[in-house]
Amino acid sequence: MSGFDMTAWSQAHLVAVEEALQAWVPADAPARLGEAMRYAVLDGGKRLRPLLVLGSMEAVSDAQRPAWMTEAAMRAACAMELIHAYSLVHDDMPCMDNDVLRRGKPTVHVQFGEAQALLAGDALQTLAFELLTPTVSDIPPAVQAQLCGSLARAAGHAGMAGGQAIDLASVGLRLSADALRQMHRCKTGALLEASVVMGALCGQAPASVTAHLLQFGQALGVAFQVVDDILDVTADASVLGKTVGKDAANDKPTYVSLLGLDGARAEAKRLAEQAHSALDHSGLTHTQALQALAAWVLQRQH
Amino acid sequence: MSGFDMTAWSQAHLVAVEEALQAWVPADAPARLGEAMRYAVLDGGKRLRPLLVLGSMEAVSDAQRPAWMTEAAMRAACAMELIHAYSLVHDDMPCMDNDVLRRGKPTVHVQFGEAQALLAGDALQTLAFELLTPTVSDIPPAVQAQLCGSLARAAGHAGMAGGQAIDLASVGLRLSADALRQMHRCKTGALLEASVVMGALCGQAPASVTAHLLQFGQALGVAFQVVDDILDVTADASVLGKTVGKDAANDKPTYVSLLGLDGARAEAKRLAEQAHSALDHSGLTHTQALQALAAWVLQRQH
Repeated sequence: MSGFDMTAWSQAHLVAVEEALQAWVPADAPARLGEAMRYAVLDGGKRLRPLLVLGSMEAVSDAQRPAWMTEAAMRAACAMELIHAYSLVHDDMPCMDNDVLRRGKPTVHVQFGEAQALLAGDALQTLAFELLTPTVSDIPPAVQAQLCGSLARAAGHAGMAGGQAIDLASVGLRLSADALRQMHRCKTGALLEASVVMGALCGQAPASVTAHLLQFGQALGVAFQVVDDILDVTADASVLGKTVGKDAANDKPTYVSLLGLDGARAEAKRLAEQAHSALDHSGLTHTQALQALAAWVLQRQH
Repeated sequence: MSGFDMTAWSQAHLVAVEEALQAWVPADAPARLGEAMRYAVLDGGKRLRPLLVLGSMEAVSDAQRPAWMTEAAMRAACAMELIHAYSLVHDDMPCMDNDVLRRGKPTVHVQFGEAQALLAGDALQTLAFELLTPTVSDIPPAVQAQLCGSLARAAGHAGMAGGQAIDLASVGLRLSADALRQMHRCKTGALLEASVVMGALCGQAPASVTAHLLQFGQALGVAFQVVDDILDVTADASVLGKTVGKDAANDKPTYVSLLGLDGARAEAKRLAEQAHSALDHSGLTHTQALQALAAWVLQRQH
């Protein structure tokens, strides 16, 4: 692995992501809006999506990359995290999952009220697109526009929001494995895929390389959701930082309800192997961070 | 007015906007999401923002403009309407204004349930940014990126969403005229301003011209809100298409509560004159549509 130190890599990148989010999520938005936005985003979360963006950009470019590539990737990393954060804020609201605990803290609507949570989620989504299109920047406009387009397609009606709608409509139904995978490919997978693809875009990867990274992101996205379903059954709330057993309580179809616990574990392993194989076929040599992130997705306890 | 026919202009442009929205707001989004999105956007609304975008683009360019300018302006016009529509869907929800009537129809959450309304609003916002960044297009990437940035800054924490937060926090308070104007400049004005500025951007106006159009948009934005406050007191629900008297019922500060009905009418007139004067100083010659839209804002009954 040519001396690659994943612990050092992820620590350095996590610090950089936190600093960027601290700087870019406004403290001075009117009334308590800024406070609610920062509460939803800062000091919590695994930051998997930002790390995927950064790992992907670094995998496709070399260390002599221009400064704008690094800036673009950090903006894309944070934009992705803002979209993820907004989706959690809205997903936790009483009319959706009605959840009171997230990342070990009261959810945004519990802390700030429903109206402020609704607004904070809305403004976090907007801020994601604002981050990608700075007024003054060396990031080529074509890259800015492509990043916005990729993010919008991943987050919108054909991606994350569409997956949420399928999820809403599927409560109490017994879905087939294919239908369940389709739902999660939209709901969770679209953002994970887009993280990898947007990183490749920042690093100006050729289309053939991006195609392999897309396959990696797709397999990883489904694997992530399978593990999520397993953890919802097996994990401890204090470790998971959110309510456990809520899928069963909400009568939602999951990989565990469909395949059983052992079947779900086997499926996660199969998907992780698919992800690794896609990287192996990409022709890229600096994929250690992406490989390590995929391994983490499989082994995570929260 | 060199034979300019505002009725013909607005009818032709309204038809084009409806056709574009029909084509771009998806019917096939999963579950009932597409249906809820289309319900929120189609067959209703004054389309003031789209008309401002189109009028502004046409005012700064000539009839031999390249096709991409027309496409960019239509995308910007529809993106603006989607942001407006999403804000109405969320604003009407029980945790915000709890309104049941909009454009003469049951509000989205009444028709589709709160969860679907939340998602539809979210997906409409995302779709706005998707429209501005088509995968294949002759619109210069720099224009696409600038449009996304302008829209995000107008809709986000320092614009519309910020204004909503001030509005939430101001219930039951007596605001000064300056504070009230600041709130509305964010809440309503930011999108109206951005409509004019994005039109100028599509038409590649020089900065000096855009500055005058910005002043026009600012005055128009506040005038619009003053008239809104007047109509909330004086209009008939069947004409207005939404609940009347709700500001007073919600104990919200308005221009009417602050200035009285006559004072508010005088303020609207003063702002309309400011708007016209900004156009006169722009040096533009084809401003008839913008002038007529400003006159409509002052005289509207709904």
